[in-house]
Parts: sequence; C-alpha cells; structure tokens
Amino acid sequence: MSSPENRALVLLSGGQDSTTCLYWAIDRFGRGNVTTLSFDYGQRHRIELECAATIAKHAGVAHRCLPIDTFAALGGDALTDSDIAVAADIDASTGLPNTFVPGRNLIFLTYAAALAWQLGAEHLVTGVAQTDYSGYPDCREATIAALQQALRLGMESGVQIHTPLMHRSKKETVELARDLGGLDAMALTHTCYNGERPPCGECPACVLRAKGFQEAGIEDPLLANA
Amino acid sequence: MSSPENRALVLLSGGQDSTTCLYWAIDRFGRGNVTTLSFDYGQRHRIELECAATIAKHAGVAHRCLPIDTFAALGGDALTDSDIAVAADIDASTGLPNTFVPGRNLIFLTYAAALAWQLGAEHLVTGVAQTDYSGYPDCREATIAALQQALRLGMESGVQIHTPLMHRSKKETVELARDLGGLDAMALTHTCYNGERPPCGECPACVLRAKGFQEAGIEDPLLANA
Repeated sequence: MSSPENRALVLLSGGQDSTTCLYWAIDRFGRGNVTTLSFDYGQRHRIELECAATIAKHAGVAHRCLPIDTFAALGGDALTDSDIAVAADIDASTGLPNTFVPGRNLIFLTYAAALAWQLGAEHLVTGVAQTDYSGYPDCREATIAALQQALRLGMESGVQIHTPLMHRSKKETVELARDLGGLDAMALTHTCYNGERPPCGECPACVLRAKGFQEAGIEDPLLANA
Repeated sequence: MSSPENRALVLLSGGQDSTTCLYWAIDRFGRGNVTTLSFDYGQRHRIELECAATIAKHAGVAHRCLPIDTFAALGGDALTDSDIAVAADIDASTGLPNTFVPGRNLIFLTYAAALAWQLGAEHLVTGVAQTDYSGYPDCREATIAALQQALRLGMESGVQIHTPLMHRSKKETVELARDLGGLDAMALTHTCYNGERPPCGECPACVLRAKGFQEAGIEDPLLANA
C-alpha cells in the first residue's frame, strides 16, 4: 500500500514541460503512486487534452480530467465589459483572444491540491518555470511558495508543490526528459500555438521547443514521427 | 472617477454574514465603488443566488455571478471512487451529501481576485469568521494572510483581503449590520440549511442566527416579514 508521503499528482497539460515532470514524478515516487490531472477549461486547442490522456496511458499512470467553466465566464464577460482592459483577454504571444485569467495557475494548483487531498496524495508536481516564462508571475518560485503555505493552512495538509523545471532552461528540460526515459513520450506531446500537427514550426512555442532540442543535440521525436 | 485604491469586490453568498460585509464595504468605500460577486457552483439551495442578486439590487450596487462546475466534478467523482473518504462529500453539520471541496474558500477568493484585477479593484471583502466556523481551516486568519500573499505575487497586484467579521461573534455581526444601516437587507438574506423560506428555525444555521439576534436584542427582519 502506498501512503500519502509517496503519492503524487502531476499537472499534465499535454505539453513538453508537464510530460517531463510526469517522468520526473515516476522516477521519484514510482509509477503506481502517480496520477495525472488535466483541466478542460475551454482551451483553444482540444488536442492538448487528447495528448494528455494519451501520454498518461503511454506512461502507465492513472489520469483525471476536471472541467473549469469559470475562465470562459471571466474571459467572456471581458468582451462585453468596457471597464476591462483588452490586454486581459488577448494572448500577448499570439495576439489572439484566449481565456487568460490572471493567477490561473493558482486556480490549477488549488484544484490539484483539493483532488490530492481526496486521493490521499501529499505531492503536487507542476512544470512551471521561471526561466522561459518570466511573463507569468503566477509561475514564479515566490508565488508557488506562498501558495503552498496557503494550501497547507487552508486544507490542514502537508502538501508539497514540486517544480522540477523551475530553474531549468529548455535545453536542460530536454536533457532531463532523456535522462528519465521520457523521450519517447515527447512524440505524443503538443506544443504548437497554432494547434497544428505536425507542428507549424514557426509560432513562438514551436521555435522555443526547437531551440531546446537543438541545444541539447537531440532530435525532437515529435518531428521524427511527422 | 474611482481608482483601484477605493474599488472593492464583495463576495456575496446571499447569507447574513456576507450581506453584513456588503454594508461594511459600502460604508468604507462608497456605494459606487462596490461590486458584489456570487458563485453558481451547484449549491443545494438555488435560493441563495436569488437572494444575493436581490440584496445587491436592494443595496444599489453592481452584481456579478460566475459559474463553477469544477466542485461538482470533484464531488461527483468522489461518489464513484472508493479511494476517497466519505467525509469529503458529507456536510458534517447536516449529514447530507454536498459539493464540499477542501480549500473551497481559496478558490472563491482566487476567482474574486482575478475578477477584481479585471475590474481594477484592489479590495476584496469576505465574510469568513474564525469565531463561528472554526471547522473550516480555509476561513482562518492565517490562511487568508498566506493566500493574500500568493495572490499579490501571482497577479503582481496590491490586492487586500478584508475580513471584517473574522473575530466577531454572531451577536457582534448583527450589531454591525444594524450600525451600518444593513438591517433591512437582513430580511432578504438566506441562512436555513433546509432551504426553507420562512426558515425552518431548527437547523444549526437557523439556531445560530436566532441566537445572534437574540443576544443583540434585535428582532430578525427575516422572521418579522415571515
């Protein structure tokens, strides 16, 4: 029997970073102790959710998906409320409207902590990184530390939030995935902002991903299979 | 024009405590600076949402309602997952299944902070109290302080969470509502766990409410109108 001290819940978006975190969690806690969690929050590319389920199956771990209709309501209201800055519902990297909500990552982690509490799991694992995503203040180490404290007090739990990629570059993340035997799973991940498969290769996400694999001197399995 | 420093968002459940907080916020920030927020999360008694909207209208402030389908998914899963303790979906005070989620109040406040960020409001007001609800760790002062820090860091904002009832007894809350001119609005609030109107008078919530009014020496306007 596993105990809370070695059960982990991994936030799995279906992308490269969270998939690497899944293999990190399997390595650290053991396959049978790991569950993955995705959120169906109205993301533009539904393919992310399919990828997450496929990756969990490939890795041989349990998978859960929770719906979140609140982001769309927040974003949708923004479109009809002139008090709200346009910046709130435009993705700066793509210029397209999305369902961006400030502090969204805090919501993801709090729901994950609630599910972990129900599952009797003490560990949360998330792929947030300061290195590549400095634009998102809810991904920074100080934010995560403060949230962990709020979750511990608010749920009277010993929950620990692990951020194995926090200070890793994309190159180092690729190397970590390789070292943990997670490279095959990279072929199943989704990164492209344009939702294309094979990936467009031109959007900021594709470019960043390609740079990481190139610097690590590793061929991206996603492109090898394309 | 109002500035973020004096705009406030009040979490309004439609109950006695949050309604008192609404009048506290109107007194402190001015009617035109106050917006109320309710959550449609699948609560057993839909009447709460109707009460919240009615109270906001009565008080002359803007009102918003956000849907949350995630709690039901967490609770619903619990019913079919033998790994999850039954306690997670039973309300200890009523013995009835509900949509209780650990740390639910953290979710409410984080969504409120996201909406406040969009509205350009710096103040959140919530009716949580240590006094009467010591069973809910996410209502305690230390939890709220930790969450405020996580929200400030995660949204790069100066958000302030106000908890005017934190250390007040029910008697003192009744007196506060009276002093702020909010007693009339009490006739519009909903407290009864059984969802009855007029209230059943026998459930724990009705008994607690009656005790507060009795100790304050004030007739409950809800019963006067019944």
